[in-house]
Amino acid sequence: MNAPTPSTHLLPDVHQRAVPPALIEALKARFAERCSTALVVREQHGRDESAFATVPPPAAVVFAESTADVAFVVKLASEHRVPVIPFGVGSSLEGHLLAVQGGISIDVSRMNQVLSVNAEDLTVTVQPGVTRKQLNEEIKSTGLFFPIDPGADATLGGMSATRASGTNAVRYGTMRENVLALEVVTASGDIIRTGTRAKKSSAGYDLTRLMVGSEGTLGVITEVTVKLYPLPEAISAAICSFPSIEAAVRTTIQIIQMGIPIARVELIDANTVRMVNAYAHLTLREEPLLLMEFHGSPAGVKEQAELVQEIASEFGGNAFEWATTPEERTRLWTARHNAYFAAIQSKPGCRAISTDTCVPISRLADCLLDSVAEADASGIPYFLVGHVGDGNFHFGYLIDPDKPEERELAEGLNQALVARALRLEGTCTGEHGVGLHKMDFLVTETGAGAVDMMRSIKRALDPHNIMNPGKIFTL
Amino acid sequence: MNAPTPSTHLLPDVHQRAVPPALIEALKARFAERCSTALVVREQHGRDESAFATVPPPAAVVFAESTADVAFVVKLASEHRVPVIPFGVGSSLEGHLLAVQGGISIDVSRMNQVLSVNAEDLTVTVQPGVTRKQLNEEIKSTGLFFPIDPGADATLGGMSATRASGTNAVRYGTMRENVLALEVVTASGDIIRTGTRAKKSSAGYDLTRLMVGSEGTLGVITEVTVKLYPLPEAISAAICSFPSIEAAVRTTIQIIQMGIPIARVELIDANTVRMVNAYAHLTLREEPLLLMEFHGSPAGVKEQAELVQEIASEFGGNAFEWATTPEERTRLWTARHNAYFAAIQSKPGCRAISTDTCVPISRLADCLLDSVAEADASGIPYFLVGHVGDGNFHFGYLIDPDKPEERELAEGLNQALVARALRLEGTCTGEHGVGLHKMDFLVTETGAGAVDMMRSIKRALDPHNIMNPGKIFTL
Repeated sequence: MNAPTPSTHLLPDVHQRAVPPALIEALKARFAERCSTALVVREQHGRDESAFATVPPPAAVVFAESTADVAFVVKLASEHRVPVIPFGVGSSLEGHLLAVQGGISIDVSRMNQVLSVNAEDLTVTVQPGVTRKQLNEEIKSTGLFFPIDPGADATLGGMSATRASGTNAVRYGTMRENVLALEVVTASGDIIRTGTRAKKSSAGYDLTRLMVGSEGTLGVITEVTVKLYPLPEAISAAICSFPSIEAAVRTTIQIIQMGIPIARVELIDANTVRMVNAYAHLTLREEPLLLMEFHGSPAGVKEQAELVQEIASEFGGNAFEWATTPEERTRLWTARHNAYFAAIQSKPGCRAISTDTCVPISRLADCLLDSVAEADASGIPYFLVGHVGDGNFHFGYLIDPDKPEERELAEGLNQALVARALRLEGTCTGEHGVGLHKMDFLVTETGAGAVDMMRSIKRALDPHNIMNPGKIFTL
Repeated sequence: MNAPTPSTHLLPDVHQRAVPPALIEALKARFAERCSTALVVREQHGRDESAFATVPPPAAVVFAESTADVAFVVKLASEHRVPVIPFGVGSSLEGHLLAVQGGISIDVSRMNQVLSVNAEDLTVTVQPGVTRKQLNEEIKSTGLFFPIDPGADATLGGMSATRASGTNAVRYGTMRENVLALEVVTASGDIIRTGTRAKKSSAGYDLTRLMVGSEGTLGVITEVTVKLYPLPEAISAAICSFPSIEAAVRTTIQIIQMGIPIARVELIDANTVRMVNAYAHLTLREEPLLLMEFHGSPAGVKEQAELVQEIASEFGGNAFEWATTPEERTRLWTARHNAYFAAIQSKPGCRAISTDTCVPISRLADCLLDSVAEADASGIPYFLVGHVGDGNFHFGYLIDPDKPEERELAEGLNQALVARALRLEGTCTGEHGVGLHKMDFLVTETGAGAVDMMRSIKRALDPHNIMNPGKIFTL
């Protein structure tokens, strides 16, 4: 690998731990060709969608096919004090998958069975490698759906580990609200269950939610039980252009404050609309726009849509266009989900440094508009999309990874943005997680005492620091 | 106190730890008359609404008025290795407040300020002694409300600590979904914050949800930030009688499976209706009934109500009566909330041993009907109410506390019921918590490995085991 040495600022706890040959041999003995030490496989598992300079890849990749496989690897790794890093489809954005301390990547993508659909209880239990699109495809006949949609076709295991959310969260919540129970392989290689299929419970510490968002640092998720929802009787989607980002944001704020149960409300700035048009050969008006979706009974959807249209027009929203057929809606949401790829393609060879702040809805205009002004002034190309109904938005600053000055500029913008969001009582990450990128921000956000509490939990549950070490905080 | 010695089965980790006179002196020096050692005050703080045989009361009660007060007590208690037990209004049901290992009760009921209402963000931050009714009274002018309603006028601190829920949870979720952030005094007497006011976050371990439901064993909650909701434009309540419990339950199951966003759906059995009628001089039909409430726009409420009425009539539901004025609704819900007191009054001198299982909705009929048959066969008087939309229900077996054989019979019924719920993939406690009463059930439910993980967390965060020791699990 010719990767530049990462700066210690960005990767604060990088040191390669030894992986004894005996461990690799034991893995090969059990897994044969399902344990790979080929460089190309290791490199593929040593990176994610983040713009981090690469670090050396993991020493081996095990393709697990069962919970017992995972437990075997972790038990062995525990004996040898070697890190393990769970891997789904590699769509994380904050460096979660980088083997910053070496070790073994456990690829769970072959653990992709839907284990039990309990349609009458609106729950499903899956293996961690099942992706959200696969899940929705497999349960299509039940009349139910799984709403969490982070854009990428991520795995349920990875989505649980990063507390993912996305476009539907404004109505259906995030993984925090939608995971009912997990099976987890702990740092000692034991297998535990964190909950039942009951809708609510007061039975002891909420281990489910401790694991959700723990980014692989407390255990490997090997089964996920999530809530499902009846497919709405009626769905309609709309697109509305606005004279300014502010007008779009103020419309959103009012929708939320009025308690309208909108299912999706996504901001795309003019800049990004342009990129999406070029990428997908679309002809969307190149103005700030909101993509919206309404779920409910036919009457309920109509009622919501009328209210929203009224609010939007107060703020100068125009060209309210409806997409009522599934095909039109798919086209619209595909455009939204392609924003990231459209942006990347707009500057060949670039990487995106993406931000992920989330603020209370009343602070959204302040936080977003100042950040837009700052990004514009910097001259760096960027895309801007947002799950604005939740107060969550993403800038993607498009940098040439070979130009440190661009990275520095983008990181400076990111830092200013996060500082602003924290001043406005927000969080440094709405849905991507801390990973390698936001450790300092986490301390600023929650205070050293709360991070110390996290460290105490980590040390108690993973005394040899083998579970995805070097992420969230340094020990 | 002439209390009988509690059986070791029910109170497994009872041993009085020494409280050094120096500690009491230091508390008196700081708090003067706000530190009480009067027996009547101590006794009042050494019990809750559970039917447990009393244990010796705490050595002193401190009436805290600030976070600094709480931190002072905990720091001192930590130095002296003396337990502290947070106390709100004493409405817990599983023995949470009993000083089973002695120590100091920290009464937070005077910490009852609503600190900041952020109406535009639908959030409010309160001190832990604010009760749910007080909160709703104080925010009345904002057009918002706080939906969580466990029946008792509990404090927000206590409701957080036990992961409470109640009648509105079927639509609005429980404390798990509605607490955004907490301020907590840790076992070392330090003060941490567990989150921000952002609606969602992926910033590190979910300390908020680790604390929610931890029953005072990991820290003392000193501030609570919760979500609020716009008061629905329209509300209507209805009462419907059924020929059998089964018909009422099957109606509920279908309502939930169809995804109707009903706000409340409560079961009361004929037995309990009789008690409520006697207690509140009402004339409800003495048949199993569902109390329901619908929230939304006028059209939405109408639509929901029509659908539900149709389902109910399929199952023989009759006498569908509407309560549309606030006064009628209040009368109805007061009747529901008085069920507990009505039952207690029906057998003078009795105590209720209450159950709290929650099962997946498809298992509700199986779980409930077998339990009714068993209770009827036992001859023990009981009341039965349920937040059936969540699959959660409560039997209250009415026992004479001086008759061990009645307690034994009730505990036997409870055990059979919980075992049944667990077989049906449910939980031993939907909303009351584990406390002293369900430690064995917790192990059966989650497995020894998960409870060991809870213990590891407890030991890491409370190394001297001073935070409400002897609850949830033994160490």
